[in-house]
Amino acid sequence: MLRLFRRRRRPAAAPVLTPRSEAVSAVRVELAELTPAPEPFLGQAAYLALVLFENLGRAVQTAPTTAAKTALGAAAAQVLEAHEGLVTELRGLGADPIAAMDPFRAGLDEYLARVQGADWPETLVTCYLTTGFLADFFTGLAAGLPDGLAERVGVLLDVDHGERVLEAQLRTVIEQSPRIASRLAMWGRRLIGDTMLIARSALAIDAAHAELEVERVEPAFAELIGAHTRRMDALGLTA
Amino acid sequence: MLRLFRRRRRPAAAPVLTPRSEAVSAVRVELAELTPAPEPFLGQAAYLALVLFENLGRAVQTAPTTAAKTALGAAAAQVLEAHEGLVTELRGLGADPIAAMDPFRAGLDEYLARVQGADWPETLVTCYLTTGFLADFFTGLAAGLPDGLAERVGVLLDVDHGERVLEAQLRTVIEQSPRIASRLAMWGRRLIGDTMLIARSALAIDAAHAELEVERVEPAFAELIGAHTRRMDALGLTA
Repeated sequence: MLRLFRRRRRPAAAPVLTPRSEAVSAVRVELAELTPAPEPFLGQAAYLALVLFENLGRAVQTAPTTAAKTALGAAAAQVLEAHEGLVTELRGLGADPIAAMDPFRAGLDEYLARVQGADWPETLVTCYLTTGFLADFFTGLAAGLPDGLAERVGVLLDVDHGERVLEAQLRTVIEQSPRIASRLAMWGRRLIGDTMLIARSALAIDAAHAELEVERVEPAFAELIGAHTRRMDALGLTA
Repeated sequence: MLRLFRRRRRPAAAPVLTPRSEAVSAVRVELAELTPAPEPFLGQAAYLALVLFENLGRAVQTAPTTAAKTALGAAAAQVLEAHEGLVTELRGLGADPIAAMDPFRAGLDEYLARVQGADWPETLVTCYLTTGFLADFFTGLAAGLPDGLAERVGVLLDVDHGERVLEAQLRTVIEQSPRIASRLAMWGRRLIGDTMLIARSALAIDAAHAELEVERVEPAFAELIGAHTRRMDALGLTA
């Protein structure tokens, strides 16, 4: 039926990895059919890693303690490592990494400008929620890459990107001034809308069947939003 | 004579390393007698690496091209790696890394605020000149650490910290708008004064003989300033 025509490639076998969150394993199969070709996938993921790094860099800059700076520095290093790994994969394909990233620059820079937050607590929330959501999403999407590449990219993205550190820092911030919670909850809700748009724009959607395809990945997005809600819950914030 | 009293420890054997610049080998012997104890040395160098990382992070954020962002990201990763290596060495000594870094925070944060620059070209100059000068200086000073530690720290600091990348980016900036050169030359001269003060404050100087000790390291500073001048020359800027 129609479903068969829309299937551009056989769903890849799920790579044998321990996923960083339940959401990843749940979304892998659903997203794998809408994975872009390797070069745009890697270009977008590599530029996105730079954007997530810029947010973490800003968190390091505004961190009020040496302990926070050094912990967030380690998270920033993880994201840079993922960026470098993705660039190396692009080179391995014979692609020019800069040319592969460039088409995604304007959109992702605009996203960065929208989510960067006004102060240290907002920047922390940004790093915590957007890095978590997008790492889950791109790890799931990576399952649809050709064999070999899928596994390697899965490993590159399947790290915690400082999630525990960010959660611990945010808990401290909220404990020290509980009144900040409602502002941060609001900020988290705003963030997730922009972040979902970025995720959706990364899907290789066939314009002729766009509506059907978007509908079909709704369950995957529901899973990702579930993981997002669990992150908010962990801070005692209402999603 | 007096010289003997001032000598707190035997000069360490110069580690067998290929120094990243001529300046390093020249200053090693002169600085090695004024090296602080391992814990304050490592604490200060580790916090300084965070400060240099913040400057590079700002350079990534303000970089106008994808190529510049990705190249500067690699430089930022190098500095973070040095930071993590120094923190690991502190742990190896049984020290609390945060407690070891904290005494240097206020002074280095103030330094950071003074040198961060107003825009992308100034931030680039800051990264290029201050990272170069301070990496030379601390690599030289590391020679006075106890055997074993001296060599390991020498290896951690003896990387190029993106010097080639920064130089190339700055050449492009200056080629594209040659009029910027005089502003950047002025900025470079301002920077080096602040940076020398930071370097000097890192020396373990015996207050009773401060004047003599400072005088004795003048040749080392002359070498470091020579390396600084070569960096300025490489850009066609007057030091």
